[in-house]
Amino acid sequence: MIDAKALKDAVAQAARTARATTPLVGSVTNTVTNAFVANAQLAVGGSAAMIYLPDEAESLARRGGAMYINVGTCLPIYEETLPRASAVLSELGRPWVLDPVGIGSGALRTSMLAHFKAHRPTVIRGNASEIIALAELWELELSEGVAACVRGVDATQEVDEARSAAVALARYTGGAVAVSGAVDLVTDGATVARSHGGSPLMTRITGSGCSLGGVCAVYAACAASPFVAALTAVNAFNLAGERAAAAADAPASFQVAFLDELYRDAPEDVADVAIELEEA
Amino acid sequence: MIDAKALKDAVAQAARTARATTPLVGSVTNTVTNAFVANAQLAVGGSAAMIYLPDEAESLARRGGAMYINVGTCLPIYEETLPRASAVLSELGRPWVLDPVGIGSGALRTSMLAHFKAHRPTVIRGNASEIIALAELWELELSEGVAACVRGVDATQEVDEARSAAVALARYTGGAVAVSGAVDLVTDGATVARSHGGSPLMTRITGSGCSLGGVCAVYAACAASPFVAALTAVNAFNLAGERAAAAADAPASFQVAFLDELYRDAPEDVADVAIELEEA
Amino acid sequence: MIDAKALKDAVAQAARTARATTPLVGSVTNTVTNAFVANAQLAVGGSAAMIYLPDEAESLARRGGAMYINVGTCLPIYEETLPRASAVLSELGRPWVLDPVGIGSGALRTSMLAHFKAHRPTVIRGNASEIIALAELWELELSEGVAACVRGVDATQEVDEARSAAVALARYTGGAVAVSGAVDLVTDGATVARSHGGSPLMTRITGSGCSLGGVCAVYAACAASPFVAALTAVNAFNLAGERAAAAADAPASFQVAFLDELYRDAPEDVADVAIELEEA
Repeated sequence: MIDAKALKDAVAQAARTARATTPLVGSVTNTVTNAFVANAQLAVGGSAAMIYLPDEAESLARRGGAMYINVGTCLPIYEETLPRASAVLSELGRPWVLDPVGIGSGALRTSMLAHFKAHRPTVIRGNASEIIALAELWELELSEGVAACVRGVDATQEVDEARSAAVALARYTGGAVAVSGAVDLVTDGATVARSHGGSPLMTRITGSGCSLGGVCAVYAACAASPFVAALTAVNAFNLAGERAAAAADAPASFQVAFLDELYRDAPEDVADVAIELEEA
Repeated sequence: MIDAKALKDAVAQAARTARATTPLVGSVTNTVTNAFVANAQLAVGGSAAMIYLPDEAESLARRGGAMYINVGTCLPIYEETLPRASAVLSELGRPWVLDPVGIGSGALRTSMLAHFKAHRPTVIRGNASEIIALAELWELELSEGVAACVRGVDATQEVDEARSAAVALARYTGGAVAVSGAVDLVTDGATVARSHGGSPLMTRITGSGCSLGGVCAVYAACAASPFVAALTAVNAFNLAGERAAAAADAPASFQVAFLDELYRDAPEDVADVAIELEEA
Repeated sequence: MIDAKALKDAVAQAARTARATTPLVGSVTNTVTNAFVANAQLAVGGSAAMIYLPDEAESLARRGGAMYINVGTCLPIYEETLPRASAVLSELGRPWVLDPVGIGSGALRTSMLAHFKAHRPTVIRGNASEIIALAELWELELSEGVAACVRGVDATQEVDEARSAAVALARYTGGAVAVSGAVDLVTDGATVARSHGGSPLMTRITGSGCSLGGVCAVYAACAASPFVAALTAVNAFNLAGERAAAAADAPASFQVAFLDELYRDAPEDVADVAIELEEA
């Protein structure tokens, strides 16, 4: 299992490097939360660029430090854009983050998410229901039986129900998986980390999950491993969410405070967020 | 005419039920205000999901408690998506809200809005100019002559000019119509309610009308009638708008305060918003 | 060279006229920052309408006081929409603003931006890298050699490096060019104005450039010249940015304060923003 002290240093280092190097992260993402995603990426030091067209996705996949793919609002052109982007990312070994938002809805979304199995995303970020559903779609063998129960874009299942699916996905991809919930779970298939903090208000603003996925991609461009990237993002969100909740008690002012705190997060404080480690 | 006390109870009940049951509301809506719509829906207790593709719209129409359709920024795929969604909604008797934003601009928008006549939306939400233009497009007979005067997405006409059109639309659909303005008008074709409150700053932020439409759909999933759903949404907005205007005197801080207040709105306070009732 | 006092009066007049006449400005713009663009346009007195379809773009080009075209997130339909919009704008002599966001990425974007050369946008708004790249794409002769270095949507070059390109573009179009940066540069090919103010936080929120372009279009609908329109927008942003930075030290609260200050900007204060004039 990973050493706790080394992990903390790696998290602080990833947070520092993002601010120091302004990694360019391209996104093919949904039209609802794209501004929140971009602003969160900018807040932690990244440079954001959102596109829809196939050749632009390929170009950004080549030029960027990492890519973020979110299937929340599929458009017809995604049928060409997503496979071409994931092919380039896979070919170049470029890190990328998959956010299987709304998995189970629609033929194109399902076919794209099935297709990504071959291209092994570096980090998968979702709520418990989405992570379970993706493991099912990819027909991975789970140590504990649990059936996905997806409803719209919100989770109906608890993070711990998705533990086995998250571990199986991480072992399959060789990357990391982050499951969002009251306590977040991050795993690389060998270690499971639980990160504490955040606020229930994060479920009352649209895009807190998407923006976390976008920030995972920023760190994936500069962290020591996919696991460190995902944990840095999750910790940064838990820290900012907790601080924002101390300043605001309703969703819109919370969202403003949250982005402000994400911008203010010191790398050492991100590394100091309370986590628990266990073997997967 | 509806009993004022019974109406007040029904409004409070709708507001309570939305928070207690988190109804899933799908939207096919515009790309400018979709985040505001989703955040407003979440603030009153709903669960939001925005999509563009035909099969996803059908699926959400089936699975959701209600649907929101807004033609503000039509994309080519809407030509397939909107008729298929409205057909399913109509077939299942599922409540849905139509927002005829920018009516009069473009062949696709016009053809979609004409098409919806056959599917009788449960609630129609628009500004005065849009409501008049929709009644004209559907060739409804009005008790008073008034010609629509649409310019972009903003109203150029007063709410009272749209009274006759709103009543005619509600009688035709058998649902309710909400006309947004300084004093909002809501009618089911038998009763006309006028709801007071809000703030002139609501016209200085994009999406206050769209988010009202989206919130109408949340309440349409759980109110005793389309009229109660529309009035609950209008009252909730007038209450939140008035309170936000007491806290903020410029548009962006007003928008933050508005969403916060919408989240804080107590069901009894929503029911207590000043309204006037008259026969249609 | 333009007279400084006359210029100041013209700037104040443009700011006043926008508030007094609420010019309708249509936009074909990106899906990430469209809400920010619309809210900025509303804040300075304009009326905003965003669309994607070809006939709607033509219709808005005809009916609006000006148009804003931003290629930040091209969709397939833009291949038809943009040439038809720019043809109508050019034919009618209707003012329009081009924002060549992300120039260099993708075949459609490049072909559209090349196509616009024939239609001579009234105002071109970009960061230094984008302005240099556009002058290169249009094969304009520059007085000083400098090669574009575009990376995603952020500038990698300084405003002064783009001076020669901006002057060449303005001379070619007969309109004005605004180059965004720490000190903004505005030119009509004869005079170069440098406008001071703003805040480094504007680079940490997505859409500060796009919303400036959108506001240029509002003023282009009512200013004495393209140069005055661009300078009014740039001054208004520098004033609002400076005031917002005094109230907020992190990006999200800065963005709220910025839009509030844009709304509060008095025309005389916009005219009083510190500028330097020199011959081009």
